[in-house]
Parts: sequence; C-alpha cells; structure tokens
Amino acid sequence: MNQPSKSTSRAPRGGNGRAGRVPYDLDAVLDIAVLAFNEFGYEATSMGVLAERLGTSKSAIYYHVTGKEDLLRRALERALGGLEGILSEPGALEGSPVERLRYVLRGAVLVLADDLPYVTLLLRLRGNTEVEREALERRRAFDHVIAGLVDEARVEGTLRADVDARTTVRLLFGMINSIVEWYKPGGALTPDQLAEDVITVAFEGVRVHDAAPVPTARV
Amino acid sequence: MNQPSKSTSRAPRGGNGRAGRVPYDLDAVLDIAVLAFNEFGYEATSMGVLAERLGTSKSAIYYHVTGKEDLLRRALERALGGLEGILSEPGALEGSPVERLRYVLRGAVLVLADDLPYVTLLLRLRGNTEVEREALERRRAFDHVIAGLVDEARVEGTLRADVDARTTVRLLFGMINSIVEWYKPGGALTPDQLAEDVITVAFEGVRVHDAAPVPTARV
Repeated sequence: MNQPSKSTSRAPRGGNGRAGRVPYDLDAVLDIAVLAFNEFGYEATSMGVLAERLGTSKSAIYYHVTGKEDLLRRALERALGGLEGILSEPGALEGSPVERLRYVLRGAVLVLADDLPYVTLLLRLRGNTEVEREALERRRAFDHVIAGLVDEARVEGTLRADVDARTTVRLLFGMINSIVEWYKPGGALTPDQLAEDVITVAFEGVRVHDAAPVPTARV
Repeated sequence: MNQPSKSTSRAPRGGNGRAGRVPYDLDAVLDIAVLAFNEFGYEATSMGVLAERLGTSKSAIYYHVTGKEDLLRRALERALGGLEGILSEPGALEGSPVERLRYVLRGAVLVLADDLPYVTLLLRLRGNTEVEREALERRRAFDHVIAGLVDEARVEGTLRADVDARTTVRLLFGMINSIVEWYKPGGALTPDQLAEDVITVAFEGVRVHDAAPVPTARV
C-alpha cells in the first residue's frame, strides 16, 4: 500500500544550511507544511512560518512550489492519490463485493497510517477554497465507491441488512477516520496489525460469536 | 437515557425582548453559547457575540452566569453529567461485563444524540484552561470505566481477545464519537435506532455471520 511514487528520501533536518540554499527536498517541505497546517490551520500558516520551521528562506521553498496553495494541493494529492490508488488494485476489482470492500477498507487504513498527517489534513478540510473543494469532491467520490460496495454486499447477502446502508458506511468511516486522533506511527501497533484489527472489529464485531446468545450462560 | 435533571423548557427565540430583559432561560443561553463555542472556538467567542446572537444584552446573560467560563463549565457539566449518569444506572451495574458494556455504550450514544452540541464541545476540548483540563480528566475517568468493562469481558471470554484491549476501546469510541460529525437530530434516524445500529455494528460486525466463511460460495 506504499505508493510507489512517494519518495522516502529526506534531507537531514537542521544542519548547516544558509538562507537561500535548498537544503530540503519537496517531500520534506511538504511534511513540515502539513504539520503546520494541521497545527495552526491552513489560513493561519504563512510561508514565513514555514521557512522558519525549515530553518531556511522563503525563496528556498519557492524553489519547490509556486506558493502556499501549491503546497496544499500537493499535500492533498498525496492523501487522495493514495486512497484512489487502492481502487484500481486487483483486490479492489476482483472477488465478491464483501471481499472487495474488505480490501479497500484495509487499504484505506494503511494509507492513513502511512501518511497520517496528510490524511488528517484531508479529513479536516472545510472547503474554504477551490483547492479544498476539489479535494472534498474527490474524497466524496472515494466514499461513494465504498457506499456502492456496501450496497452490492447487502444485495449479495454477506453484509447485514438490518442496519441502514448509509449508517453502515458512516460507522465504518467513523471508526477508520478516528484513527488519525490516536494512532502513533512507529509504535508497537504496526500499520498492518492496525488494519487487521479494524477489519476484524468492523466485519466481525468485538463480541466472540461462538459465545452463547446470553453470554452469562456461558461463564 | 434522558437526564431527569435536564430542563427542556425553552423561552421562545427572537420575539420582542428589549435589552436588559431576561427573555431566555439558562438552557437557551447555554444552547446558544455551545453552538458559538463549537463554531468559532471558545477563546474566539466573546460575551458580546453571545448577547448579539441571543438578541439581548450582556447583562441579561450575567443574570444567569458569572461569565464565559461559567457557561463553559455548565455546558461541559451537562455533557459529562449525562455520560457519568449512565454508570450508576442498574443496567451498568448488573449483569455480565459484556451486557454492562453494551448498556453503557448504548447510553453514551443516546446522551450524544440528545445533547449533540454539548458532547461535540466536550470531544473537541484541547485542555487550554483549568475548566477544560478538569473536564478532560472526567472524560478520561469515564473512558477508563469502559476500558475496565472491556477487560472484564475479555476475561469472561465474551469479547474477542485477538484484538488488543486498548485498540478495541479506541475503535469503539472512534465509531461512537464520530457520530457528532454526521448525525442530524430530528431526522429519520432516531436516537434509539442509532444506538441500536451502533451496538449491532460494534458487537456483531457488519458481516452476516451465518454466511459461509468464503462469502462467494454462498451467492
């Protein structure tokens, strides 16, 4: 689920850069920008603040991008491109609806865990600018594909029909999107395990299903 | 799950109040304050803005409360009091751990749906002031009780042990807390049905469990 287009090379932070140099690659500039957007809000973050955080000059940032909006567009592209990329993978196209749904949701968790600050930025968008509205439109289109898979799986009879389809989709996304609030990348819980846990809880529920209907009867 | 202490009487909105009058009861003042805090943030909301929204004077608000912090304290008390109240109900104290867990989570959804803006305010707290930190402490204590029930239910064997207890709690709360992002009170989905749906999805999962392990074999 790592996007092949995503460069993981990073220039060293800090160091002996002088103003005007280009000590960071675009990914590092984006990383800093996204953290600042998430912390202060996009509107409240100036290019000057970003330059300060990078320990460089504004002109060094303009070497990579045309401005703040360009940074936002590229950051959102990374989150959306990662999510949309799942939809064209074989696992999302082949198999039964419930299998495809499981594959796509697992993939969404992995993109979220891999690019946590980028997806956080996407999830907190309010649609104040054209760039934000376009991103929200793409996110809605992604959600719409999931909703379609949920519908198909209900028709197939593998997804429960006693909960409204719309509510099902919202609860699934509620659970998945909440990960940005608590998941700490690099900790004991790996992205793969996290994805496994989410899929287990979402599809199978937290209850042990071979337990008797009245659980107390079993203990 | 409606809190008996919660007055539902409301003075009419708008109308012919003149400045200095006390045209609203405390609940109506709180309602307006909470909506404003959620929209603009607590720090950015002045008593003047609140008075304007109420169509009254600041002194009319001071008739009810000692100031903005008092409004915040009372608003958070309503959300927290509602949640904590569940824990002393018979359903939360009697029965097996999994039954008590189900009862408490269902109750939390109902409080959330009943007092949506109040719980939204609670969930978005950052802990910037003493009042906020105290509220966060009480929220953590509530979450801690849930975590204890999850632990007990795992020991009992009714809750799955193949997902980490901490992750289980976070995913359950992730699903429940996300409701503030999309639920519209007064619509077709009643609080009772919402609570039922959340409990079904959380405990039983979205998959139909009498389906064959490989769902395609069934269609």
